[in-house]
Amino acid sequence: MPDTTRILDTIDCPGDLKALNEAQLKELCAEIRAQLIATTSVTGGHLAPNLGVVELTVGMYRALDCPPDMVVFDVGHQAYVHKLLTGRRDDFDTLRTYGGISGFPKRSESPYDLYGSGHASDSLSIALGYALARDARGGDEAVVAVIGDGSMTGGMAWEALNQIGQCQTRLIIILNDNEMSISRNESAFEASLGWARMNPRYWETREKIQRKLSRPRVGRGLVRLGTRVKDSFKHLVVPGMIFEELGIVSVGPLDGHDLGLVEAAVKAAREMDGPVLIHAVTRKGKGYEPAQSNPSLFHGIGAFDPATGKTPPRAEGAAPTYTEVFAQALIAEADRNPDIVAITAAMPAGTGLDKFKQACPERFIDVGIAEGHAVGLAAGLAFGGRLPVLAVYSTFLQRGYDQLIGDVALQGAHVVFALDRAGFVGDDGPTHAGLYDLTYLRTIPTMRILAPSDEAELVCALHTALGLDGPVAVRYPRGAGTGAVLPEAPTSWEVGRAVRRRACACAGERSQGSGRGQVAILAVGHMLQRAQAAAELLAERGIEASLWDMRWVKPIDEDCVRAEARSGRLLVTIEENTIRGGFGAAVAEFLSAEGLTVPLLQLAVPDEFSVQGPIDTLLDEAGLSPARMATRIAERLTKLPQG
Amino acid sequence: MPDTTRILDTIDCPGDLKALNEAQLKELCAEIRAQLIATTSVTGGHLAPNLGVVELTVGMYRALDCPPDMVVFDVGHQAYVHKLLTGRRDDFDTLRTYGGISGFPKRSESPYDLYGSGHASDSLSIALGYALARDARGGDEAVVAVIGDGSMTGGMAWEALNQIGQCQTRLIIILNDNEMSISRNESAFEASLGWARMNPRYWETREKIQRKLSRPRVGRGLVRLGTRVKDSFKHLVVPGMIFEELGIVSVGPLDGHDLGLVEAAVKAAREMDGPVLIHAVTRKGKGYEPAQSNPSLFHGIGAFDPATGKTPPRAEGAAPTYTEVFAQALIAEADRNPDIVAITAAMPAGTGLDKFKQACPERFIDVGIAEGHAVGLAAGLAFGGRLPVLAVYSTFLQRGYDQLIGDVALQGAHVVFALDRAGFVGDDGPTHAGLYDLTYLRTIPTMRILAPSDEAELVCALHTALGLDGPVAVRYPRGAGTGAVLPEAPTSWEVGRAVRRRACACAGERSQGSGRGQVAILAVGHMLQRAQAAAELLAERGIEASLWDMRWVKPIDEDCVRAEARSGRLLVTIEENTIRGGFGAAVAEFLSAEGLTVPLLQLAVPDEFSVQGPIDTLLDEAGLSPARMATRIAERLTKLPQG
Repeated sequence: MPDTTRILDTIDCPGDLKALNEAQLKELCAEIRAQLIATTSVTGGHLAPNLGVVELTVGMYRALDCPPDMVVFDVGHQAYVHKLLTGRRDDFDTLRTYGGISGFPKRSESPYDLYGSGHASDSLSIALGYALARDARGGDEAVVAVIGDGSMTGGMAWEALNQIGQCQTRLIIILNDNEMSISRNESAFEASLGWARMNPRYWETREKIQRKLSRPRVGRGLVRLGTRVKDSFKHLVVPGMIFEELGIVSVGPLDGHDLGLVEAAVKAAREMDGPVLIHAVTRKGKGYEPAQSNPSLFHGIGAFDPATGKTPPRAEGAAPTYTEVFAQALIAEADRNPDIVAITAAMPAGTGLDKFKQACPERFIDVGIAEGHAVGLAAGLAFGGRLPVLAVYSTFLQRGYDQLIGDVALQGAHVVFALDRAGFVGDDGPTHAGLYDLTYLRTIPTMRILAPSDEAELVCALHTALGLDGPVAVRYPRGAGTGAVLPEAPTSWEVGRAVRRRACACAGERSQGSGRGQVAILAVGHMLQRAQAAAELLAERGIEASLWDMRWVKPIDEDCVRAEARSGRLLVTIEENTIRGGFGAAVAEFLSAEGLTVPLLQLAVPDEFSVQGPIDTLLDEAGLSPARMATRIAERLTKLPQG
Repeated sequence: MPDTTRILDTIDCPGDLKALNEAQLKELCAEIRAQLIATTSVTGGHLAPNLGVVELTVGMYRALDCPPDMVVFDVGHQAYVHKLLTGRRDDFDTLRTYGGISGFPKRSESPYDLYGSGHASDSLSIALGYALARDARGGDEAVVAVIGDGSMTGGMAWEALNQIGQCQTRLIIILNDNEMSISRNESAFEASLGWARMNPRYWETREKIQRKLSRPRVGRGLVRLGTRVKDSFKHLVVPGMIFEELGIVSVGPLDGHDLGLVEAAVKAAREMDGPVLIHAVTRKGKGYEPAQSNPSLFHGIGAFDPATGKTPPRAEGAAPTYTEVFAQALIAEADRNPDIVAITAAMPAGTGLDKFKQACPERFIDVGIAEGHAVGLAAGLAFGGRLPVLAVYSTFLQRGYDQLIGDVALQGAHVVFALDRAGFVGDDGPTHAGLYDLTYLRTIPTMRILAPSDEAELVCALHTALGLDGPVAVRYPRGAGTGAVLPEAPTSWEVGRAVRRRACACAGERSQGSGRGQVAILAVGHMLQRAQAAAELLAERGIEASLWDMRWVKPIDEDCVRAEARSGRLLVTIEENTIRGGFGAAVAEFLSAEGLTVPLLQLAVPDEFSVQGPIDTLLDEAGLSPARMATRIAERLTKLPQG
């Protein structure tokens, strides 16, 4: 609900910022923070990173003319302030909700969203593309990339920096250094930034800086900057030897909460002929004590009480999440097997490995935002006799696809991939959806793919994967399990063996021909519960269905499929994965190879980008709610020739 | 044929090198070079890179004890010398041949091949994995990664360096800096290395070096190195500020052709407690004038005359390669459309873009070995109004899979992907096979995939792709086209429309039921020729087949498939792609969605890693020769119920 006395309500575009005086800017920043807290306390979201970039964003936009100047945000965890200043203030309370505005920049949402980010480290490549396109048409707009220090550990950023340094086009990189990425980042790059910050050599007098800035290589722009910010000299140093080595002039670290300094730096950088990196130091959660003291928790948070920062306690007796069960199971396995090593790519909390780190600190590895390296490292550890478990979101493992093929599978390395957040992910929307893994993993020879149907099965699936050889993936969804009773001691599953969860009342009786009352449902992973509900709805309509918990997407249970196909039933595959090439395709491939010509209905996620919203809503829209699946199955049955 | 007087013939393992004196080592290096030239002049192979690392490899192995010490090679373009010294001398003439030894390290081939490389930039991750595994078991073996300067531009190397610097484990990185990757590399990283080489500050007296080397951070090991190589001080400087910044001690650049110096450096590095990078400068093609003067040509070369270095001229009237036709067509398109920009990831010659560079230098971009960045950059260029064409080998685009989804498709960026070397690639073997693209591209919503059936169709497919919007891939095979007459002016294809290439004699007559003489073949890309031949073989057996050039793998021609399915014919899909989730799966998905239950035979590459050998042999083994396809189709027909 807009407060009509707010300055924020007078800001419809970044240009409106230029009319404000210092006091008004200060007030605006406070209003923005209040809005961020008010909205995310209801919708959830990436609060801490956005609290950290309020002055940075306002100062940057005051220095630019947007449009035509262009700003590209990396990841997008820090774009809420940008959204509030670019026409989405009044819709801001719909953040991350179904039909509402996205939690990330989104090209279809605003002309100010020049790139719909989501994964880390891409912004420099995108910004360079914009800059080179500008150069080609002879334009002189500024192109700015805003990137966090955590994203800098991603190899794609290095690849882009390399080319930016080489081609020396006009480009401004604002390195938002909050000394941590999603969880505390311990990379060498971080150490280097930290070292730059700490080294007394880099905190010398303005004269020395001036001398450095007048090097021919740096040019006039920064000398002017030096002059303009003369009263802030302590903020202005020359760190980032790495960037300098690559041919990118580096400015800072400067205090990213000093709005005027940010503005001056961006203005100066805008006048440079080549690439400039502005190293701004900010504090995650700035201005909101609960977030400031626990930035990890408030990095991405659900609804909370804005007065206290407290999140609602889990409901009494609520089921644990798959993530929690995975972490607990892995710790138990590691207790028994000293070879197990757990790897995360900067997501210890998200993957549950923060618990593993507490339990087995010497067997925990956080590689930073670096999924390709994580996969290669896992292969090397396996060659060396370790048993690596890479816990990673399904969507992020996409960045290690080539390494899965070449470094792991082709080499026969025994690596276990724990794919969290497989399927729809809810409020984060399409950039984070884990809807492709069954397909991309299935392309890889020797890969085995397990899909436990509940958290109790997850314990056994992990145990099974650890006991095999070669590459094995275990995929499971975001969110709470079913409340299944966890096994006291996990058992190993037979490879490629499904389990029948519901016998068809008609089994064995009418074994020839397909027709009403003759359905075999092959369900993958946690879709089993929805499939069970669909089978019950079908039963109410007089349609009997057998139901299988497939457990394995690769290899599939060929005996099961063959038997059900020969029974003449309508085969129905159910999976929370794209329809393209997933489990349903695996069944079709097997039928084709066997020469079995039987009716097959593939229920999966349609081949289109998903949207944000509650996972149940998205599944319903995808035709994967029990009611819609039952209807689709019943309709298909009516169209089959009677056997 | 081994020459019994050779020293090389006395070397069965690296340990045998230690008994040789300086003169013998010199002789050995000459023998190795002679062998490299003799073998690759017959088999083809990566000659120039291997000529460049003869002394480097011999010197390194003299300094190590392998096993237990371990060496990991990046890419593997420089592992022939290693192979000659590790028990594969007598089989060396089978290099890259069917059933022979691999052109890359291969774990199944030798215990000395610790990692089967093929793609660039992975070795540091693999080596770090070995090193951490060693640390876990309390071992003290040396782990060495040999990596070229070109591979250093790949983001995965940065990701690994970052972690290596952080965890400070014992690891030796030998940076083989030959000033070029596969083609001349113009990256900022290169510039930085070059700058280090050129800077007089870095070529100072031994005293100064000693002082640097006695910094507490560097430790005793290097001081000892300084002492040992005192007569080679001009080779020993301290460059690589980037590495130093990341916490990796950097030694060099030293002359990588000075065997004794390499040996001393590796010995010294082996005694260090933390990571050390040895920067060795070598010359591609060293010791063989034709390769030295044209290292690009001799990077990967076919058979040639060893006396002259001349490659046999193309046979009179031979068809041009798909690569050549692509390059020519793109240049023609760029003449008409000033927005077109061509991008390569360090493969200008391989993709044909070297020709484009000559024609339109200002619209040519080489990003280095950096496929992820290449995809992101293409998206940014498209947002900025350019029309980017990324020409890339199918196998290497795997490294940009995530960026294809998030940066291009989800954003609606119009980027054309020209996928060269799709399908089997021949002598390079499984690391380079382009057998997954139809599947991984098909997972991506909005992606369109064209597969021209010959080089004339390639011209039209490219034209069509440029005229669309959003992401479009054009995939074509390695090697020569069919000799098809190229169109004077390319035409645009209707989206998702196949072309009938052969009418079934039985068409329309027996439209119900399937049975003998009732086959519809749906062929993808250049498999059309083989499908045509298979159809002729079938006709000889009295089996009539209709034949379609599908042209589009996404979207498929639904009208075509529907009509053929309703005709009751056996549907046969033919593609040079993994059976998992490819074009055959697309047809199965469509049939399932339409409720069409018809016999379907999916002919594709089996779900196993391929081997090296002539492409025709590999296709035959995959069951995709005309004869084998005809047999498989005929057999399937006999098993169908008679309609």
